[in-house]
Amino acid sequence: MPSADTFNLSDYMARCQARVEAELEQRLDALPGHSLQLKSALQYACLQGGKRVRPVLVYAASKAFGASPEQADLAACAVEMIHCYSLVHDDLPAMDDDALRRGKPTVHIAYDEATAILAGDALQPLAFQLLSSPLDTSISPEQKLRMLNYLSTAAGIDGMVGGQAIDFESVGKTLSLEQLQTMHSLKTGALIKASVILGALCAQNIEAAHMSALSDYADAIGLAFQVQDDILDVISDTETLGKAQGADQALDKPTYVALLGLDGATHKAQELCKQAIEAIDCLGQEAVALREIAQYIVGRKH
Amino acid sequence: MPSADTFNLSDYMARCQARVEAELEQRLDALPGHSLQLKSALQYACLQGGKRVRPVLVYAASKAFGASPEQADLAACAVEMIHCYSLVHDDLPAMDDDALRRGKPTVHIAYDEATAILAGDALQPLAFQLLSSPLDTSISPEQKLRMLNYLSTAAGIDGMVGGQAIDFESVGKTLSLEQLQTMHSLKTGALIKASVILGALCAQNIEAAHMSALSDYADAIGLAFQVQDDILDVISDTETLGKAQGADQALDKPTYVALLGLDGATHKAQELCKQAIEAIDCLGQEAVALREIAQYIVGRKH
Repeated sequence: MPSADTFNLSDYMARCQARVEAELEQRLDALPGHSLQLKSALQYACLQGGKRVRPVLVYAASKAFGASPEQADLAACAVEMIHCYSLVHDDLPAMDDDALRRGKPTVHIAYDEATAILAGDALQPLAFQLLSSPLDTSISPEQKLRMLNYLSTAAGIDGMVGGQAIDFESVGKTLSLEQLQTMHSLKTGALIKASVILGALCAQNIEAAHMSALSDYADAIGLAFQVQDDILDVISDTETLGKAQGADQALDKPTYVALLGLDGATHKAQELCKQAIEAIDCLGQEAVALREIAQYIVGRKH
Repeated sequence: MPSADTFNLSDYMARCQARVEAELEQRLDALPGHSLQLKSALQYACLQGGKRVRPVLVYAASKAFGASPEQADLAACAVEMIHCYSLVHDDLPAMDDDALRRGKPTVHIAYDEATAILAGDALQPLAFQLLSSPLDTSISPEQKLRMLNYLSTAAGIDGMVGGQAIDFESVGKTLSLEQLQTMHSLKTGALIKASVILGALCAQNIEAAHMSALSDYADAIGLAFQVQDDILDVISDTETLGKAQGADQALDKPTYVALLGLDGATHKAQELCKQAIEAIDCLGQEAVALREIAQYIVGRKH
């Protein structure tokens, strides 16, 4: 196990990214081919690269609690599938109407709208199918159920979809900082938090105090992630970001930059990063990856 | 327990329908209200009445294996939520583009398209959230995981969504009887079968032979259900059916009536009903509801 001095986040992330990429590829390849177009759309939706922040968090949290990467593979794939499905549906004409994602045509452009709806609808249960797989016996049924309950809650009305609904209803409105925070803690934060919690649940016998510390860490980085996204939407150009720059501004969506200014938002992101790192002080050396990821989230350029 | 002579399917179905209606209402009412429009759309999507065939099957199968209605409530709600979400997304403009469902405006007409997409996206994980609920301890974690794995598989590419994709791709094409059967066994059959299997899984210690018999029963009624739907699409008027009559014909979709003629399709439905009842011969008196439901499915007028 590397010490904080020798730990290299870029290397660690690259290893996690390659690992989840291979796992996703293998699981998607094994899907039935009775609708080749749908299967191809699922692969297109999931295998476009991307930062894989959520799977990296699963692996990093599982590592902090002593679980092996093998034990974390299913959870890493599951959270990424939920994330990918949400992007496909978010990009639909009736939603954000985006033609470009990570520099490539979005699923409804590359295929068609019906296929994009169905691809999202198929990716979501696939995540739950993986987590409930009887083939994996490295995690106890009780822990698996906790993972399923946590992820399904985070994906639904009390999480990601609920946040998207508030986001959609708030276009053109002025939200308070508190309302903006609620919206983002649901829309982005819930799945980020689920990734961290599911990673921990890959290990057995976690102390309640450690779980609570991890939960605080996850809340802080989830929010930091969104604040940084808002900052990047303003300062990055289209090429670096892989989507139209200023897209949120163009839609008159409330953002942290609009509410706090660019400097205020940058300060807020730094504060949240500090909070996150302090929260997991009790976790010791094994949590080095989690600490470095917190810094990465507010330092990233895309 | 009533004998076959005294068992009244209409009464039994009415009791099951009232039961699942109350359960759904209570669970949807308990959802967070941070997006009132989304919550209202979920209620609108789920509480429009309807035959509740899938929950009735859950209760009937659980009864055949000696589980209580209380033990079957979560599974009954879960399968109906998956069914309701699929109707909401099926009706979308990019899919079947239906403005009317059970005689009322479809969700994207009553609300808007984005809300309809999000309502479906929120209903799906809610089903898995219910099945993984830590509050219910009447079913073992192992059985719950089997239910979750069965339902998530039936909802995805190897079930309902896969069938919908084939259906969508086959508009204007001529399918063979075998291809039509594959499409329907996925599109409609998988969730009907999941309802029966999940009902059985509410009980403990089911013999493998009984599970296999139940599986054959479920395959036969799933197909019978679709054949009867195709028949009704031709012979019913719009008022009875609650949707535009001949809608499938208008879309040039392949149907059993188109392939076998009206008499051939009627004969096929009767044959499947007979097969279903014979398959569960071994289950004895407790399976009376399952037997009568098989007859109801091919006898229903809407």
